[in-house]
Amino acid sequence: MERPRHQGMAKNTYLRWRLPLVCLLWEVAMIVLFGVFVRFGAEADAHWEEEKQEMNLTSDIENDFYFRYPSFQDVHVMIFVGFGFLMTFLKRYGFGAVGFNFLLAAFGIQWALLMQGWFHSFKDGKILIGVENLINADFCVGSVCIAFGAILGKTSPIQLLVMTLFQVTLFSVNEYILLNLLHVKDAGGSMTIHTFGAYFGLTVTRILYRPNLEQSKDKQGSVYHSDLFAMIGTLYLWMYWPSFNSAISDHGDAQHRSAINTYCSLAACVLTTMAFSSMLQKKGKLDMVHIQNATLAGGVAVGTSAEMMLTPYGSLIVGSISGIVSTVGYVYFTPFLESRLHIQDTCGIHNLHAMPGLIGGIVGAITAAAATEDVYGKEGFIKAFDFTGVYQTRTPSIQGGFQAAGIVVAVFASLGGPPASRPYPPRPPAHRPTRILVGGILKLPIWGDAAAENCFEDDVYWEV
Amino acid sequence: MERPRHQGMAKNTYLRWRLPLVCLLWEVAMIVLFGVFVRFGAEADAHWEEEKQEMNLTSDIENDFYFRYPSFQDVHVMIFVGFGFLMTFLKRYGFGAVGFNFLLAAFGIQWALLMQGWFHSFKDGKILIGVENLINADFCVGSVCIAFGAILGKTSPIQLLVMTLFQVTLFSVNEYILLNLLHVKDAGGSMTIHTFGAYFGLTVTRILYRPNLEQSKDKQGSVYHSDLFAMIGTLYLWMYWPSFNSAISDHGDAQHRSAINTYCSLAACVLTTMAFSSMLQKKGKLDMVHIQNATLAGGVAVGTSAEMMLTPYGSLIVGSISGIVSTVGYVYFTPFLESRLHIQDTCGIHNLHAMPGLIGGIVGAITAAAATEDVYGKEGFIKAFDFTGVYQTRTPSIQGGFQAAGIVVAVFASLGGPPASRPYPPRPPAHRPTRILVGGILKLPIWGDAAAENCFEDDVYWEV
Amino acid sequence: MERPRHQGMAKNTYLRWRLPLVCLLWEVAMIVLFGVFVRFGAEADAHWEEEKQEMNLTSDIENDFYFRYPSFQDVHVMIFVGFGFLMTFLKRYGFGAVGFNFLLAAFGIQWALLMQGWFHSFKDGKILIGVENLINADFCVGSVCIAFGAILGKTSPIQLLVMTLFQVTLFSVNEYILLNLLHVKDAGGSMTIHTFGAYFGLTVTRILYRPNLEQSKDKQGSVYHSDLFAMIGTLYLWMYWPSFNSAISDHGDAQHRSAINTYCSLAACVLTTMAFSSMLQKKGKLDMVHIQNATLAGGVAVGTSAEMMLTPYGSLIVGSISGIVSTVGYVYFTPFLESRLHIQDTCGIHNLHAMPGLIGGIVGAITAAAATEDVYGKEGFIKAFDFTGVYQTRTPSIQGGFQAAGIVVAVFASLGGPPASRPYPPRPPAHRPTRILVGGILKLPIWGDAAAENCFEDDVYWEV
Repeated sequence: MERPRHQGMAKNTYLRWRLPLVCLLWEVAMIVLFGVFVRFGAEADAHWEEEKQEMNLTSDIENDFYFRYPSFQDVHVMIFVGFGFLMTFLKRYGFGAVGFNFLLAAFGIQWALLMQGWFHSFKDGKILIGVENLINADFCVGSVCIAFGAILGKTSPIQLLVMTLFQVTLFSVNEYILLNLLHVKDAGGSMTIHTFGAYFGLTVTRILYRPNLEQSKDKQGSVYHSDLFAMIGTLYLWMYWPSFNSAISDHGDAQHRSAINTYCSLAACVLTTMAFSSMLQKKGKLDMVHIQNATLAGGVAVGTSAEMMLTPYGSLIVGSISGIVSTVGYVYFTPFLESRLHIQDTCGIHNLHAMPGLIGGIVGAITAAAATEDVYGKEGFIKAFDFTGVYQTRTPSIQGGFQAAGIVVAVFASLGGPPASRPYPPRPPAHRPTRILVGGILKLPIWGDAAAENCFEDDVYWEV
Repeated sequence: MERPRHQGMAKNTYLRWRLPLVCLLWEVAMIVLFGVFVRFGAEADAHWEEEKQEMNLTSDIENDFYFRYPSFQDVHVMIFVGFGFLMTFLKRYGFGAVGFNFLLAAFGIQWALLMQGWFHSFKDGKILIGVENLINADFCVGSVCIAFGAILGKTSPIQLLVMTLFQVTLFSVNEYILLNLLHVKDAGGSMTIHTFGAYFGLTVTRILYRPNLEQSKDKQGSVYHSDLFAMIGTLYLWMYWPSFNSAISDHGDAQHRSAINTYCSLAACVLTTMAFSSMLQKKGKLDMVHIQNATLAGGVAVGTSAEMMLTPYGSLIVGSISGIVSTVGYVYFTPFLESRLHIQDTCGIHNLHAMPGLIGGIVGAITAAAATEDVYGKEGFIKAFDFTGVYQTRTPSIQGGFQAAGIVVAVFASLGGPPASRPYPPRPPAHRPTRILVGGILKLPIWGDAAAENCFEDDVYWEV
Repeated sequence: MERPRHQGMAKNTYLRWRLPLVCLLWEVAMIVLFGVFVRFGAEADAHWEEEKQEMNLTSDIENDFYFRYPSFQDVHVMIFVGFGFLMTFLKRYGFGAVGFNFLLAAFGIQWALLMQGWFHSFKDGKILIGVENLINADFCVGSVCIAFGAILGKTSPIQLLVMTLFQVTLFSVNEYILLNLLHVKDAGGSMTIHTFGAYFGLTVTRILYRPNLEQSKDKQGSVYHSDLFAMIGTLYLWMYWPSFNSAISDHGDAQHRSAINTYCSLAACVLTTMAFSSMLQKKGKLDMVHIQNATLAGGVAVGTSAEMMLTPYGSLIVGSISGIVSTVGYVYFTPFLESRLHIQDTCGIHNLHAMPGLIGGIVGAITAAAATEDVYGKEGFIKAFDFTGVYQTRTPSIQGGFQAAGIVVAVFASLGGPPASRPYPPRPPAHRPTRILVGGILKLPIWGDAAAENCFEDDVYWEV
């Protein structure tokens, strides 16, 4: 079945020993590392009774669990059902979409608990975890799910696990630089999750460029019911995005405000997406690809600023613009990226995550730079931007500058270094160290990826 | 494809300029109006730190966000996945069901934030919004989703947007009359949402009566998997209905009680629906239409009374009756409405929302009238019915009378005035001002609706 | 259509009078019993205002509703969408899977509120209910949904209702013995829900053994889209399992800890399941049956210990092992059970619930026995195991012993008495009183079950 055609060598997709080996060895590694490092944080530990007394808390309701658990569950649904089902639109890749997303996310959250834990929750040699760590692990894996969208249907599950290993690592480094070194605000992850995840995925799909992909063109479309399955993913992402952007904001008004801003932005985004979807199609018909994806751009684009005083009408403006940009991207940019830059982006993550993510970063920088004590209140101002300690002399305009710097860092980190000077005509794309490393490893002929004519086909890795 | 047949004129379903124009102009209008009017409420504003001190609150957990956000998200799922997927049962109208529901709801919640805001949250020239406003906007749009059920498959997306504009406006006026002028309790919206929404939708479908609809009869059925998609909608509506009915109840016991009553009512409703579905079918087989719809009547029918001391067994009784009434409605009333009153009700909203909504209003009136200080406690009694200020002299029986008046007002408002004296034989249905206005506008030949033989077909408005 | 073949008598599946009669009579019984017994608990009653003052509570947020309602809704989704859709994998039994699950669960939660209420919430002649009762009722019904998995496609809806009646009753007795008499901890129900439910279901399917089931073998498989529907069920069970295991734990750290342990266990379980699914298949391909089911074993296996100080790495270990055991079970045990023990287990509940449930019980016993004041803190230790009153002298090792005893009791209770001494060669399986009773009743030829060649076919009971 796996005849070598248009390929330098036969493709061996038999994973019987390779996939189990990787899964089991890595799970053993997780167990060992968790055993050495991971313990319950104070609010999840049985010593909490004593902790409560020390902290003078009168009620169990003050446990962070009650502030964040509902949002955590919504985020959890977005990662597993949202991203998983969004990618089931392909007619014969539903198992791979849901199943591989399940696999990489389940591995990724374990590795993210460790990586993020070392950077952010490390105390006396232990990583102390609570519900906020679970949310952050899901967030981190969200960026891998985004990258998966670019290479959907073209990689083996082992490649996805390898990519997850590298991406989670790099994500955590980038996140640490942004949040801790630059002291940037990015609660909904426009920069850390979306921009980073999307450009990382685009880099990977560029490295894994398949010149003969038109051989599986007939399988790159959808069928009627696969589009409906994808709408399950779309709607859960859309509905729960207010939880995504508010999940790790400060308690109280910040969580409340994030949810409202995101709600408004997403509502506006649906209208402009529908408008442009119809306008850009010759017969004026709506295109399911746009409805499934571009309607979500509004959530991405307020990821940084949702917890700020963006205001409801500001959110409507941002949401409207991002819906337009994203839909236009699907119609014009995606074909361009493939034909001219050899970037084959199966789900169009450049339109849904990269561009709206950049918008989100910019809107965040502007909103931060425009902040005043008048708008936030004296205490609210300090709390919103965490202008305490060494940061107490930061002004809004300086903060805006750092926010802008964060965008640049996120893009560079995702590309594995500064972009190549001449991306066209196509050349071996790995010019920078990380890119050489990740690219080199993912291109090794040992991971069991399929030949071009077998892409987008569940039959390769699944009993169908 | 769009041959004029049995129609006075050719139908032009080409929306390339019309749909974008409506979407974009209206979104611009929303941005302007939000810019002028909408601001964050105290609990979502960065000044909350100061507010907390003024209100002597010791913890962020007192923010209304933590009382209502989980319920809000459940309601949000009901509106977008619940109603959206419930209507995917048609074999070739899944995109329209989910997609148009998405479009009208996304527009509707913005317009509802404004309309309801002017009536209920207007202060010093600004509408101050918080999570409760988001819930109420979703509720308002819920009534539009209900009305959409009656005309499913027979209108263009522009008509739906126009209908949404009018319905949200009228909803808000009716809601203001009931809640503020009549001081009626209706937390789960039996009257304001279900009765109003259903009769509004039935009025619209009557106005848009299509004499030749049997031409698309083959498309009015379901296929096996479309029925399973619809069950996703059914179950999410069913499971989250306790959140729907408790979402805006008073903090504490009232929210708690609403959830319990609704849970009980819905459980009972499933059994009587199954019983009558089997009993009314010659071969004794169950009918998916009933299971998808009538099982939900129990949630509608306790919408008004759930937050009252209806008691669990009272809820079982109400749920049992509503399941029977609804199932009987599907078998006998729907065909009657179409053949005799020319009311073509695609989803049978008369059975799921109109009749159970009326039951809900009546049960609410009785439960209110039967309230005693003994049952509620002295303070609980005043709190439950808000018998303070000018209402402190109201007695339960007077409250019951006002509740009953609320039902009548809701029905009249939804019909756009008192019903025509002779609904049969069929005559031009628009006798009253609002009905003439809405009906006249929706019947304009400019909105791009399809010919009768192309109804219930996604191909008209979607790239398939 | 219902030709008698290989059967002693013709099968009559005409339910027109029987199903309605059972549904309506039982619902009337529920109404009467609820009327006599069920009232609102203090936190859902309108007297709560006074209660608050007596209990010196300063805020409505202290109402148990706000501690547990979000988890309740997640559990609710698991029961109705999780179990319902998980069982839609069969190509022509989707209506029965979702619909009958809906029916039996809707009845079961009412009966469970009564049964569990009499045992646990009975005060002055009344059952006082609140959100915790709703969760427990859903839990109880969860065990029935599990049992349904074993007999999926082979019984009539009336048989399912009869089974539900008996199983809920026996569940409540068993639960009372474990929780109250043995003072065993089992918040996530490894023993009370999973072990009990699974062995009960296996007993029932053994009693209802169908020797000619291979006549409907062609319908026992899945089709592409039915497998995707099933993945909806899988993912909702997987994602919400942290809520399941933490829903009724003590407020504060215990709920927090349960969620974290479950999250970790489930993540690990996915990797080992994928590994063994690929390893045990000749071509190394992944099998959807395993992914849909064995990935969930990690949630079952930490059901007892999740609220204890199992630690995150302990959870990873338990999750890893349970994924392996479960997958191996699907490949080797299920065929063995059918061919040698005549146990026809449609969904493989032995692999997903019975074995992981036993693991869960054992892990719970070990974790309890290993508890120390050092690990839990002095107060935390007493609170975690409720070592107060008559139990204040219990040591961890004694508690571990009681936990182990609980496993044995749960298994015996589910089998309706001690197991038969010689389960092979096959003999009439009902040796013990309960088994004779339940088995005898379910085998009565009056419930309308289908002939072997019509099993796994919606057409028998549904208008298709």
